[in-house]
Amino acid sequence: MPTIVVDVMPKAELLDPQGKAVAGALGRLGVDAFSGVRIGKRFELTVDGPVDDAVLAQAEQIAADILSNSVIEDVVGIEVVE
Amino acid sequence: MPTIVVDVMPKAELLDPQGKAVAGALGRLGVDAFSGVRIGKRFELTVDGPVDDAVLAQAEQIAADILSNSVIEDVVGIEVVE
Repeated sequence: MPTIVVDVMPKAELLDPQGKAVAGALGRLGVDAFSGVRIGKRFELTVDGPVDDAVLAQAEQIAADILSNSVIEDVVGIEVVE
Repeated sequence: MPTIVVDVMPKAELLDPQGKAVAGALGRLGVDAFSGVRIGKRFELTVDGPVDDAVLAQAEQIAADILSNSVIEDVVGIEVVE
């Protein structure tokens, strides 16, 4: 069954307090390899039939309109797997 | 600046009510191309220096121990970008 993966991240100019909290926790735990953490969402949309242009267009549409909030988030990737 | 992307998804055998809610909303909105939606997390870890084996090992360690809850989630991908 093909799956369309949509990745949504908070915009670069926003603070992302959740990521900041994880980055702080990593520092306190002695993990020093990473200078920053940002946390977004990954959606896996299962497609029943083949992935054609119409399905991809619909995926792009809902990624922009429903799965992400364009005021604070960017859709960073739409990818077909399998 | 290299970034390590860690993808975490709810385990396949769990219900994922958030994904179910989105799938239901898509149906009500007339979007019929997708039979299921699952929602996970995408972490972007910024690395200051080069990504060597030690940094990758540390990323795998925190992906399993800190970024995911192994009772309900699976780490589905660890990938270096840029």
